[in-house]
Amino acid sequence: MKHHNLHNTIVAPATGSGGAIAVIRVSGKDTFSIVDKIFEAKAKAEGGLEEIQGFRIIYGDIMDGDEIVDDVLVSTFREPNSYTGEHSVEISCHASPYIQNKILQLLIDNGASPARPGEFTQRAFLNGKMDLSQAEAVADVINSETEAAHRLAMQQMRGGYSDEIKALREKMLHFASMIELELDFGEEDVEFADRGELRSMIEDIKSYTDSLRDSFRYGNVIKKGVPVAIVGKPNSGKSTLLNALLKDDKAIVSDIPGTTRDVIEDTIILEGMLFRFIDTAGLRETADIIENLGIRKTYQKIDQADVVLLIAEANDSPEEINESFSAITKQIDDAEKTLFLIINKTDLADSKQLKNLDEELNCQAAQCIKISATTGQGVSELISMLVGLVNVNRSDSQQLIVTNLRHYEAFRECSESLDRVLKGLDEDLPEDLIAIDMRQAIHYLGEITGEISTDEILGNIFRNFCIGK
Amino acid sequence: MKHHNLHNTIVAPATGSGGAIAVIRVSGKDTFSIVDKIFEAKAKAEGGLEEIQGFRIIYGDIMDGDEIVDDVLVSTFREPNSYTGEHSVEISCHASPYIQNKILQLLIDNGASPARPGEFTQRAFLNGKMDLSQAEAVADVINSETEAAHRLAMQQMRGGYSDEIKALREKMLHFASMIELELDFGEEDVEFADRGELRSMIEDIKSYTDSLRDSFRYGNVIKKGVPVAIVGKPNSGKSTLLNALLKDDKAIVSDIPGTTRDVIEDTIILEGMLFRFIDTAGLRETADIIENLGIRKTYQKIDQADVVLLIAEANDSPEEINESFSAITKQIDDAEKTLFLIINKTDLADSKQLKNLDEELNCQAAQCIKISATTGQGVSELISMLVGLVNVNRSDSQQLIVTNLRHYEAFRECSESLDRVLKGLDEDLPEDLIAIDMRQAIHYLGEITGEISTDEILGNIFRNFCIGK
Repeated sequence: MKHHNLHNTIVAPATGSGGAIAVIRVSGKDTFSIVDKIFEAKAKAEGGLEEIQGFRIIYGDIMDGDEIVDDVLVSTFREPNSYTGEHSVEISCHASPYIQNKILQLLIDNGASPARPGEFTQRAFLNGKMDLSQAEAVADVINSETEAAHRLAMQQMRGGYSDEIKALREKMLHFASMIELELDFGEEDVEFADRGELRSMIEDIKSYTDSLRDSFRYGNVIKKGVPVAIVGKPNSGKSTLLNALLKDDKAIVSDIPGTTRDVIEDTIILEGMLFRFIDTAGLRETADIIENLGIRKTYQKIDQADVVLLIAEANDSPEEINESFSAITKQIDDAEKTLFLIINKTDLADSKQLKNLDEELNCQAAQCIKISATTGQGVSELISMLVGLVNVNRSDSQQLIVTNLRHYEAFRECSESLDRVLKGLDEDLPEDLIAIDMRQAIHYLGEITGEISTDEILGNIFRNFCIGK
Repeated sequence: MKHHNLHNTIVAPATGSGGAIAVIRVSGKDTFSIVDKIFEAKAKAEGGLEEIQGFRIIYGDIMDGDEIVDDVLVSTFREPNSYTGEHSVEISCHASPYIQNKILQLLIDNGASPARPGEFTQRAFLNGKMDLSQAEAVADVINSETEAAHRLAMQQMRGGYSDEIKALREKMLHFASMIELELDFGEEDVEFADRGELRSMIEDIKSYTDSLRDSFRYGNVIKKGVPVAIVGKPNSGKSTLLNALLKDDKAIVSDIPGTTRDVIEDTIILEGMLFRFIDTAGLRETADIIENLGIRKTYQKIDQADVVLLIAEANDSPEEINESFSAITKQIDDAEKTLFLIINKTDLADSKQLKNLDEELNCQAAQCIKISATTGQGVSELISMLVGLVNVNRSDSQQLIVTNLRHYEAFRECSESLDRVLKGLDEDLPEDLIAIDMRQAIHYLGEITGEISTDEILGNIFRNFCIGK
């Protein structure tokens, strides 16, 4: 990784658009001398920034020659005690795009380079301030929409499974070296690596990586939300149901800007969990989007969903409901999808009708719930059921949860390599084959924390960061 | 003004949405004790924020009970050395809406109040850190779209005419007291205020306020931009002309977010001046919005514009152009509007046609320019003419320019009161009448700097600020 350019000094705006103040970040070895060229402290006694301690704030003017561009606060950080591990400065100016562009331009004219997306965090990684899984979590922390997602991202940013993975990797490296040493002795039939100890270590590690791999199902739901499709006849109450879920005091609408998605979705946070209602095109529209059952669009929605809510009306005939239900059931070939049958408009049905439904409905295995989206009756039970679905995937004993697809892939690959090691031990395969599988498992663990990384991996990771981070 | 609540501690996000980091501002006497309740410095030796000097940065965690909400930098400012003049803290956190909301909520739970728009700047004014004209300029600095607007706003924020106005006001107060003293002596016919000196002072002040009042025409154009209407037959080249202006390397498109206007406008900055093209509905649309001359819409656009660009084609007959020209001229009753006749598509006309136009066009007094928006010929001359129009309103000897409508009104009222004072002196009116006009002039000057202010004036001013400023 030594060929990464850490010699230039980079600059980028670090705050969003609008607001009252904006922060421009500068990092690199020439930070102080570059900023000194355009900054005049009000208190002349301060001297140049080069002489100032870290964690200080200096009040002064950004100058373009003789002209004052803005009065600003400059925060100083000295290596290694900064976010990037390098000399850094944050310039807090008035949040005018004109001023920000002017200051950026002046810094670039004086020798700074515009930072690439995520370059500050990438430098923090390259300078050893954090490992790769922590660096990735920085973006997750910024993008977390719910408390649960925030908590997992914070945990990962603050270390998460980093230390344990590093320790396991060291242990495996030790055993791999032992095995490879045996190879050097060729035909002499020595065993430096105790096979019993090795097997028990591999089994421990595999149980650890398996459990992290499996936690991804829950972690991904926390991070991305649960995709839910609502299907039903027109006017069966999709919009009213969404509004009823919203009106419940446990629900808040997610209005985080910048979360672009392929399809228009309504997202609702229920008890801290994010639910994404697929392709519902705006909660406030009474939408004629859901057309008859059986059309292509409905099937597409079901395909994308983890949870399908089939809405029927309490006044529908049991036969009609059963028919819709089996049509939908046929579409759900995935055992991991959950179907809820929701009988809506119970307020418009009399007790005879409701009793009739209870007797005649033929919805084996599906969860069925009666609600009135209008009066709110049954809505909080529905919410509990939805939230329960998420938590069912969660093993409470497990502290650490994988939310990152890249980590999931690495844990999966690692587990598979470990499987081959165990199989190799069982079958008493030659050391060199076992060693190859060990090395692969070690490689995948190293990829997670970034002890192994390529330009391509880093490029993929930091490309998705915002500028200034 | 003593009844303004300066006793509570206020909090607001100070940065815009998006970005990598966000800043939350806290100001008021309990700032340190409130922030201390939710902040744990990493270096335990730091002690509470109360003991820490100003202009320091502390690294630590925002805590919600035992749970870490985020790791943040806390910048400390001790009264009176802060923006507001009060104890203040800026919390720099990850730019996640979740985190920001959580920190705001924790601060409010611990005793802070949400800040009203502009409340930090209002406090800076009430605590004597800046006068009212400077406080108003803070919003102008943030909203400046061009270099010229930025320069005027910075000048005003850094004092502008404040000191001079305060000095003049003192001088007038002195004379007014003298005149009022004469009143106390009733019939004794004493003159404490030297009439010759008084007249010369009033004349000096009036010449000063007159010139500031008159500078508003230029100042307003700098701040708000020059409204330009382009009218012409369909396909005469409006879009191509706008694109040609844009393509000129002197032009930049203004893409400042948040500048909402009543009508959709394209704004272009030419040589640092902002031009607003009225109701052109997007540069990139080839728009059928401009229909035939003579329709209502065209007239409305002309009404709103300071500059009208009438586009004709070099292949049009001179009679047709003359007819359009007189139709438009009739609409322009305002002597302050400028009409340009633009003969476009010169690249499609031969020299005979162009010569014929030169001979037959009957466009007295209007500036006429031949261009080809397609080839760019003549475009830079057009830009020079447009920019020249703005500068014609500017007197270069004048350093200070009024850009604020409220100040303009006050200068105008002040000049009128001074006129009455001079007239009173000419006509040897009784002291009490002269004193009343003096007091009014003094009042208007005091309104500008805020020495005189009412809740209503302050409310109007700060209501238009953003939250966090």
